[in-house]
Amino acid sequence: MPVRTRVAVIGAGPAGLLLSHLLGRHGIESVVIDSRSREEIETTIRAGILEQGTVEVLDRTGASDRVLTAGQKHEGIELRFDGEGHRIDFAETVGRAVWLYPQHEVLKDLVAARLAAGQDLRFQVTAERVEDAGTDRPRVVARDSEGGPIEIEAEVVVGADGSRGVAREAVTGARGGHFREYPFAWFGILCEAPPSAEELIYSNSPDGFALISQRGPGVQRMYFQCDPRTDPEAYTEERLWEILQARVPGTTLKEGPVFQRDVLRFRSFVAHDTRRGRVVLVGDAAHTVPPTGAKGMNLAVADVVLLTDALRALLLDRDGSPLDAFPEAARRRVWKAQHFSWWMTNMLHLRPEADDFDRMRQIGELRTVVESEAGRAYLAEAYTGWPLPRTALDV
Amino acid sequence: MPVRTRVAVIGAGPAGLLLSHLLGRHGIESVVIDSRSREEIETTIRAGILEQGTVEVLDRTGASDRVLTAGQKHEGIELRFDGEGHRIDFAETVGRAVWLYPQHEVLKDLVAARLAAGQDLRFQVTAERVEDAGTDRPRVVARDSEGGPIEIEAEVVVGADGSRGVAREAVTGARGGHFREYPFAWFGILCEAPPSAEELIYSNSPDGFALISQRGPGVQRMYFQCDPRTDPEAYTEERLWEILQARVPGTTLKEGPVFQRDVLRFRSFVAHDTRRGRVVLVGDAAHTVPPTGAKGMNLAVADVVLLTDALRALLLDRDGSPLDAFPEAARRRVWKAQHFSWWMTNMLHLRPEADDFDRMRQIGELRTVVESEAGRAYLAEAYTGWPLPRTALDV
Repeated sequence: MPVRTRVAVIGAGPAGLLLSHLLGRHGIESVVIDSRSREEIETTIRAGILEQGTVEVLDRTGASDRVLTAGQKHEGIELRFDGEGHRIDFAETVGRAVWLYPQHEVLKDLVAARLAAGQDLRFQVTAERVEDAGTDRPRVVARDSEGGPIEIEAEVVVGADGSRGVAREAVTGARGGHFREYPFAWFGILCEAPPSAEELIYSNSPDGFALISQRGPGVQRMYFQCDPRTDPEAYTEERLWEILQARVPGTTLKEGPVFQRDVLRFRSFVAHDTRRGRVVLVGDAAHTVPPTGAKGMNLAVADVVLLTDALRALLLDRDGSPLDAFPEAARRRVWKAQHFSWWMTNMLHLRPEADDFDRMRQIGELRTVVESEAGRAYLAEAYTGWPLPRTALDV
Repeated sequence: MPVRTRVAVIGAGPAGLLLSHLLGRHGIESVVIDSRSREEIETTIRAGILEQGTVEVLDRTGASDRVLTAGQKHEGIELRFDGEGHRIDFAETVGRAVWLYPQHEVLKDLVAARLAAGQDLRFQVTAERVEDAGTDRPRVVARDSEGGPIEIEAEVVVGADGSRGVAREAVTGARGGHFREYPFAWFGILCEAPPSAEELIYSNSPDGFALISQRGPGVQRMYFQCDPRTDPEAYTEERLWEILQARVPGTTLKEGPVFQRDVLRFRSFVAHDTRRGRVVLVGDAAHTVPPTGAKGMNLAVADVVLLTDALRALLLDRDGSPLDAFPEAARRRVWKAQHFSWWMTNMLHLRPEADDFDRMRQIGELRTVVESEAGRAYLAEAYTGWPLPRTALDV
C-alpha cells in the first residue's frame, strides 16, 4: 500500500524541510524522506552564511526561533589584497546584513519544528527513483533502512535531494545541464580556537586565496585555495597554519587544534530542466555553485519560497500557471547567483595559468570596487541577497 | 647644434599636444615632434568618447573651444542582451556624462591652439632614439622629412609616441611590460548614414558583440566582434549590414555607403616602467587597452594631467618628488582602466571557446548590473571616468 500525501519531498536538507514547513503553514500536507539519519543531518558541518531574506523567512515563519539569538549578525566583510584590508560595510551601503548561523543549526531547528507540528518525516529512507512524472499522481519508490520497500504517491514530487539525488535524473533525463568545473578547490579546516577576526576576511594574496571564517566563539572555519587533487592529510597542522597565516598578512591567526579537514571542489551546475510534469527540483538538485559567494543554501531557500507560492496556487486554487512560471523565475535568480559566485571566485582566486597581467588586473578590480561606494553597494546587495517575494511571510 | 628646450615631447597625439598646452599655461616651454604630417594627424578617424573629466580639461584650459558646442553630450548608453535593451543612465546614477567628439577633432583643436600660442611643433620629424635618459639633459635624436638630423636636448623627454614609438624602449629596455592579447577583434566600419540610435548601443548577441556608435549627423561608426584574422575586404557591404543587423535585434539600422573598414586587434599592455631618469612615458606609449570601455584617449589625458603637476614641481620649484610618485599614481588608474576594459569586453563578447555556461553567466551578469541601481552606478562611474586632480584646471 503506497503512502498517500499531497507533496512528496525527497531530501531533509534546508530546501526539503523548509518547503514542508511553509506548505504546512498553508495546510498542505507532505511527506519528507531522507537517506541519512537525523543525527547525520544535524551534525554535518556545512555552509554558515544566511542572507537577510533567508533569516527573515526562517524567523518570521517560525522555522527557527534561534537564528536571531544564536546566530551572529554580520554587517560587513573584509576584502584583503595588496597588503591592505578594506571593509565592505553592508549596513552603510545597502542597509542589510547577513547572519552567521551554521546550516546544521538551521536543520536542527527545522527538524524540531517539523516534528513538533506532526510532520511525517522519515529518516534513513532512500529514494530509488521517481515514477510517473508525466501524470498527476507521481510516485517515489524508496527503501527503508532494512531494505523494505516504500512507495509514496503524491500530487507533486519535489526533489530536494542534492546534486547526487535521484530526482534530478527523473526531471532532466539525458539532457543534464550546464556544468563548469573550476581549476582549484578549497582546503577547509575546522579548529578549536577563538575567532581571529570579527567578520569574514576574503583575502587575495600572491600565494592564492584564503577565507577566515567563524563558526562560534570556540570553533573556527578557515579555507585556503588549493589544487583540487590535494590529499586532506597531506599537511601537518603546523604547515596548515603556516599556509593560512601567509595568506592573511596583517592578521595574526589564533591557532588551535584542527579537528576536521576537507577539500571542497569548485563546481557550477544548472539543470536544463527543473520541472517535468508534477516533479520539481529545488536547491542543489537543480543547481550548485562554488562556495565563494555563500549562495548555495540561500538559493535553496529562494527556490522554496517561489515553489511554495506555485504549490499553493496549484493545490489550493487549482491554478497551475505559477508552477508553469516557476522554472524561469527560479532560473533568473540562479544565473545571477552563478555569476556572483563566479565573480567573487575569479576576483579573489589565482588561476593556475594566471600571469602577472591577471594578478594586476585583479588588484585593479578590487581597488575599483572598494574605492567606489557604488562598487561596494553592488557587491553588498548580492552578498546580502536580492529580495525574495514577500508572500513567503504570508500566514 | 641641438635644439634646446625644457621639455621635449615625442608625439603630437592627444597626450603630447595636451601636455605642451598645459605646460605652456604655466610658462614651461616645450618642443613637440611627430613623424606624421599635420594632415594625417587631423584626418585619421579613431576613438570618439571623452570622459567628463577629459572634456573639463579640454574646455576649461582652452585646449578646445569646440568640444562643448560641436561635441555631443551623451547621458547614457544602452546595454542590449537577451532580446532587450536596458539604458544605463549616467545623469541619474552618477550625475555625469560623456561627450562624443572624435579624437581627430580634439587634435585639430589642439594643433590650432598650440600654433596660435607659438608652440614649436614639428610635423614629419621622426624620433629615432632617446639618449642619456639617466642624465638631467636627455636628448631626442630624430630626422626630418628629408632625412636631415635633428637633436633636441631637454630637461625632460616625454614619450607620447604610442605603442610603436621609440620612447618605450628607452624607458623599459628589455623589461617590457604586462601584455595580453584577446582572442577576438572588432570589425569597424564608417558609413554615410543618419544615426541609427541616439546613444551608443553595446549589444551582447548570440552571434557575438556589436557596438552601434556615431560620429556625427551624417557619419556613423559601427563595430562587430570578429576573428582577429578577418580580412577587412572579406565581406560585401550587403553582408556587413546583415551581420550588424542580426546582432542588434529590435533596432533597424539605417544603412548607407561604407567608406572605411578596418579590423581592430584587442590588446592590453602596461609597461613595467614608465620613467627612467628624466624620460617619462604617457598614453599609449605606457599602456594600451582594448577599445570596449573607450578608455584609451581618456587614460592619456589622465597621465598628462598627473605629469603636468609633476613637471611643474620639478621645473618650476626644483621639487622632484611628484615626478618620483608619478609612475605609481598613473599606474593605479591604468590598472583600474585595464580592469574596466577587460570587464566590459568579457561581459559583452563571446569567447571562441565559450560554452552555454559562459553565455548564461554573461546574461546573469548583465541582468544583475541593469537590475541594480548600484550596478548601473558602478558601471557609469567607470565609463564617465574616475575623478582627475583639479590642479589640471589651475592657471
